Amino acid sequence: MFILIVGGTELGTIPGLSAAGSNPEAVAYTAPADAEVLWKGKPQIIDALPVDPEGHPTPALISRAAYLEAGFPVLIVRAGTLLPPTVPYVETAASPGRDPRRGKAVEEAFSLWEKGKMLGEELSKTQNCLVIAESLPGGTTSALCVLRALGYNGMVSSAFPHNPIPLKEKVWQEVSSFQGISYGSLKGAGLKAVESCGDPMQAVAGGLVEGALPECQVVLAGGTQMLAVSAVLRHQGYNRPLFVATTRYVVEDKSAHVKEIAQELGVEVYSAPLDFSHSSFPGLSDYERGFVKEGVGAGGAVWYAEKLGIPVKTIISRVEELYKNFSP
Amino acid sequence: MFILIVGGTELGTIPGLSAAGSNPEAVAYTAPADAEVLWKGKPQIIDALPVDPEGHPTPALISRAAYLEAGFPVLIVRAGTLLPPTVPYVETAASPGRDPRRGKAVEEAFSLWEKGKMLGEELSKTQNCLVIAESLPGGTTSALCVLRALGYNGMVSSAFPHNPIPLKEKVWQEVSSFQGISYGSLKGAGLKAVESCGDPMQAVAGGLVEGALPECQVVLAGGTQMLAVSAVLRHQGYNRPLFVATTRYVVEDKSAHVKEIAQELGVEVYSAPLDFSHSSFPGLSDYERGFVKEGVGAGGAVWYAEKLGIPVKTIISRVEELYKNFSP
Repeated sequence: MFILIVGGTELGTIPGLSAAGSNPEAVAYTAPADAEVLWKGKPQIIDALPVDPEGHPTPALISRAAYLEAGFPVLIVRAGTLLPPTVPYVETAASPGRDPRRGKAVEEAFSLWEKGKMLGEELSKTQNCLVIAESLPGGTTSALCVLRALGYNGMVSSAFPHNPIPLKEKVWQEVSSFQGISYGSLKGAGLKAVESCGDPMQAVAGGLVEGALPECQVVLAGGTQMLAVSAVLRHQGYNRPLFVATTRYVVEDKSAHVKEIAQELGVEVYSAPLDFSHSSFPGLSDYERGFVKEGVGAGGAVWYAEKLGIPVKTIISRVEELYKNFSP
Repeated sequence: MFILIVGGTELGTIPGLSAAGSNPEAVAYTAPADAEVLWKGKPQIIDALPVDPEGHPTPALISRAAYLEAGFPVLIVRAGTLLPPTVPYVETAASPGRDPRRGKAVEEAFSLWEKGKMLGEELSKTQNCLVIAESLPGGTTSALCVLRALGYNGMVSSAFPHNPIPLKEKVWQEVSSFQGISYGSLKGAGLKAVESCGDPMQAVAGGLVEGALPECQVVLAGGTQMLAVSAVLRHQGYNRPLFVATTRYVVEDKSAHVKEIAQELGVEVYSAPLDFSHSSFPGLSDYERGFVKEGVGAGGAVWYAEKLGIPVKTIISRVEELYKNFSP
């Protein structure tokens, strides 16, 4: 089963931080619209496909292409979006993550973890595999804060071709000073880190992984946001193998340190061999130039589809076809 | 997978109609508390176990006993409860059913059906079996209205030992006159019947059944409320086999016409051979005297557990044990 956790954090509205919306006002619609694109093929909460500020389309198209080709089941879990998706979703009663420069980020981190655990246990009883994905604008910055608080020095990735690293580091500095935490000061307290400076997706995703029965394979589908979830799990004492599936755009992102952080965490990484360099749509071929990179579990959806016998080429063609229908 | 749909209708607050609460004010808590009892073992939204006006416990104890013994997965779907359960649930964005003597009962009947279909399709991809249960106080009366509108003459069951038939018939008369419908006037328009005089559970449950892939066995877990869902399906053109699993208390209810309606609808009925006559708890042994009878998919949960190799005796003992922990 492919589980898409849609969530939000106030960090997503800081100008220049998140590329998951054409502008900061559009960001609130991105995650619910991604759920709709994945499951129904088009956004319902807004008229247009979610795009970044330069018009590149949401990676939900990749996840949808994999879903259509492979026929795996999807389930949407809402963890703190401002607006609900119009498709059915599992409600966790999370609030959007607060800006950790001004307050506790996720007051209900512990209860969200418990709810994730309950769901993970039930769903894993009859699934071979749970692929856990996210759509949470601003999530690489909450990932950075959690990684820093837990003592990891590497840089997270970005949906911009030029990673706004100074801005992210500035947020962490302000968070550190407001929350009274410092590099590594929350070691061994993964959920405390989420509570103080993370986002609600991290709590729910971590709980899902912990709750899943050992006979069910669990895949964290995402880039550095899922490395942050892995870090939370490790610092909650989770010592089973962890597997993150992402795209080659994230793994090859020279501004980030995916391999290094993964190695420190004892996490195996799969890198989906996507290639849109021959696409006739600039919106897609620009993925090769560092735009968008990952999201909505695109890399994990490719992994899942491959496992079910679908070649990556088939998915790439399907993405082209889907995108064509959105083009003017 | 055992799917519990929790819902509501304003009919549940008419004095004397529903036994799913110690009094009409308590009725709003019953369905969410049932979800909590099933999944967590105790209510969280209120302090005490849901009981009928004479103190008999919710049949959620039976469903929970089967869940614990058989280890099947559960999922809660919310379809119009006033209050949300505190456990995770799938949100369908249904409003509580309106009193059909004063307005359309379920304005969003068609979209709820679609949402049920979407969920049924996804979940059935990796499940051998979907057991669809309900907790909806007042639901036998909305069931009666739907059956009448679709042209079925039999009487529905009741959680009271003395079925308040005159009151239910009076409601139908008033509904008939307010809605401008009569016996059989909505034949061939199952969802129209739900829209006009049913409840939101009926729409979601029917959609789940229609959406499920043919290779997945579907079981409607409930008494005459699930016969109403079956009628809706038949009048929406559904012609695959239908299977209703309920308790012997419902099947043996002389005030109702379970077998007759089932036969007219071409529905196979399973009757769970529960027996609390030897229970030392009057709350349970009174089930043999016609109190409570069914709910929270108790009969279907027994069917499911039996299918997974658990004898009914084991479930009965477990119910005793669970109830003991709630007794003063």
